[in-house]
Amino acid sequence: MATKPFHPPVRTLMGPGPSDIAPRVLEALSRPTIGHLDPQFIVMMDEIKELLKYAFKTNNDVTFPVSAPGSAGMETALVNLVEPGDKVIVCQNGVFGGRMKSIVDRCGATPILVEDTWGRAVDPQKVEDAFIANPTAKIVAFVHAETSTGALSDARTIAEIAHKHHALVIADTVTSLGGSKLFVDEWGLDAVYSGTQKCLSCPPGLSPVTFNNRAVEIIKNRKTQVQSWFMDINLVLGYWGEGAKRSYHHTAPINSLYGLHESLVMLQEEGIENSWERHTANSKKLIAGLSELGLEPIVPEEERLAQLISVSIPDGVDEAAVRSRLLNEFNLEIGAGLGALAGKVWRIGLMGYSSRKENIDLCLNALKAVL
Amino acid sequence: MATKPFHPPVRTLMGPGPSDIAPRVLEALSRPTIGHLDPQFIVMMDEIKELLKYAFKTNNDVTFPVSAPGSAGMETALVNLVEPGDKVIVCQNGVFGGRMKSIVDRCGATPILVEDTWGRAVDPQKVEDAFIANPTAKIVAFVHAETSTGALSDARTIAEIAHKHHALVIADTVTSLGGSKLFVDEWGLDAVYSGTQKCLSCPPGLSPVTFNNRAVEIIKNRKTQVQSWFMDINLVLGYWGEGAKRSYHHTAPINSLYGLHESLVMLQEEGIENSWERHTANSKKLIAGLSELGLEPIVPEEERLAQLISVSIPDGVDEAAVRSRLLNEFNLEIGAGLGALAGKVWRIGLMGYSSRKENIDLCLNALKAVL
Repeated sequence: MATKPFHPPVRTLMGPGPSDIAPRVLEALSRPTIGHLDPQFIVMMDEIKELLKYAFKTNNDVTFPVSAPGSAGMETALVNLVEPGDKVIVCQNGVFGGRMKSIVDRCGATPILVEDTWGRAVDPQKVEDAFIANPTAKIVAFVHAETSTGALSDARTIAEIAHKHHALVIADTVTSLGGSKLFVDEWGLDAVYSGTQKCLSCPPGLSPVTFNNRAVEIIKNRKTQVQSWFMDINLVLGYWGEGAKRSYHHTAPINSLYGLHESLVMLQEEGIENSWERHTANSKKLIAGLSELGLEPIVPEEERLAQLISVSIPDGVDEAAVRSRLLNEFNLEIGAGLGALAGKVWRIGLMGYSSRKENIDLCLNALKAVL
Repeated sequence: MATKPFHPPVRTLMGPGPSDIAPRVLEALSRPTIGHLDPQFIVMMDEIKELLKYAFKTNNDVTFPVSAPGSAGMETALVNLVEPGDKVIVCQNGVFGGRMKSIVDRCGATPILVEDTWGRAVDPQKVEDAFIANPTAKIVAFVHAETSTGALSDARTIAEIAHKHHALVIADTVTSLGGSKLFVDEWGLDAVYSGTQKCLSCPPGLSPVTFNNRAVEIIKNRKTQVQSWFMDINLVLGYWGEGAKRSYHHTAPINSLYGLHESLVMLQEEGIENSWERHTANSKKLIAGLSELGLEPIVPEEERLAQLISVSIPDGVDEAAVRSRLLNEFNLEIGAGLGALAGKVWRIGLMGYSSRKENIDLCLNALKAVL
């Protein structure tokens, strides 16, 4: 039996990502494919690097999108910086810290866990204590904006602690880039990775990363080879690096990069500070409306993300049934809880192009109708 | 200064990939993004798996696209099957064998190189000899269709030799899938990876893979963890596997998968045997025309790919200047030589949607004008 073309339903995406994609980004994806060594393509690659520097607030030369989703960006940051035998402090206050721990294990290194309650920020004092107990720790890795809970951690303070102890800091900014204040250079974040399907409102599939000179020096002076060929920054830079003739490493995902370029142009047009402000303002409106429905955020206000809000589920409500009705009757996607929060919260996203007044109204009206 | 949207030139892609993308595949990329756990999306994932089984001529349950380009598919096949201390026979008759060797090294295993001249098929006798010299070798890895040279190797015979010696076979079918005869089950290929940007005529960024039960059993019974979290088949199958509730691993590249689905529907509509036949017939026409221009294939006819033809460059011709003129005056991309063949050949591709009479005429006319 012949399979027919797939025409997806038109959803409103207010979960933990992917977020709604702006029409002009969708259109960009369908522009004609050109070669990955085409001179015109290389012009676009250079523009993407500059636009990413703008988004990350960095002057790092080594700033480019990894050709795979955010979890590959995480692995890229870790496998390049971690060597067997290293000690790595991993802050875990949600799903993604646990994933970092698993990658550190697979590098033959020793993860030292700093645990905080799911739904709370990383406690910097615990990071300090972990360094005191493990003075040779080489790296601290943490999640700036925990997608699984909606908590925002204090990146600047964690970086200060790391540097005081002569360690590097790796920051997961998958959900923060474009939606929360983020100053890679000013805060001294040494290696940072992100994703495209959150506040940049691109389809998933790429992971913007940036490494400062301190991180690059460590990568260049490794005693062992990076365990991944695909993710080895030393090789990838032959293609994405500055100046020199671009040499083939892997074939870049051309059309996905068209989409990223377009979304970064949109971010530049809006101005990143305005984007942060929009996310904050819309979040306040949504939370006010959710409160009226008896849905309260689980993260304390001072640690709460604007772009992703976890709310507790009222007693006696079948949370999966509510999500199904929202999807089937309103074409509205919101997110379920993950891990320790499974069944306990909904995660409502207002990320990137999803962070619009129309979406807030739709979400509140739909929830009101269903609850 | 504000960066403007990027509008690529319209090229005809007759290099080693990416190939021309059919208009309906480009359109599919821009369909509305839905969530990666949306029930409708999961229907499409299941269809992609079935369509890939059709393309690979396999019934393997473990058949899905890795969320990254072909080189990540190569690494996925190797890191899942290879453990530290293993011996792996790697056939090298072009660039991609060398890459396999590097990955085997990074797995802490020992690569045993079987070398053949660039532009020739893998010599099965050398594979046999390598097994005799290394009877404990666990795997033989080879490239079915060498993109760097245009040579086709005898996958069936290599697989027979591997199995006779109780080893597994890993086949790189990046350039063969859809363009050359390929029978994964009939030939007994244990682990196979491919790319989307060659004879499937999708944009680059995904790597279809398939593993048979013999390979899956070995992966499930590893003594050590797979060194990559992102590529660990044990984890990825929680999302792409059959039956069970799909669990989150990474966020799938939604819109790229729309494109792959559409191109696989097109392949099914044409019929894969018809696609093979079209590639063969168009190749003959192109080669006849190239011969008239004094451009002769470097690969002997019985080892030659239909979809990618390396031709030697006439004496005294500035090969880079010719490619520049083709690009600038005719919007036509052909490929340069790589590695041992750099400066010595052009690589002309007739892959997937690029394998059309119009393209043959354009290419021959343009070369005639420029030479």
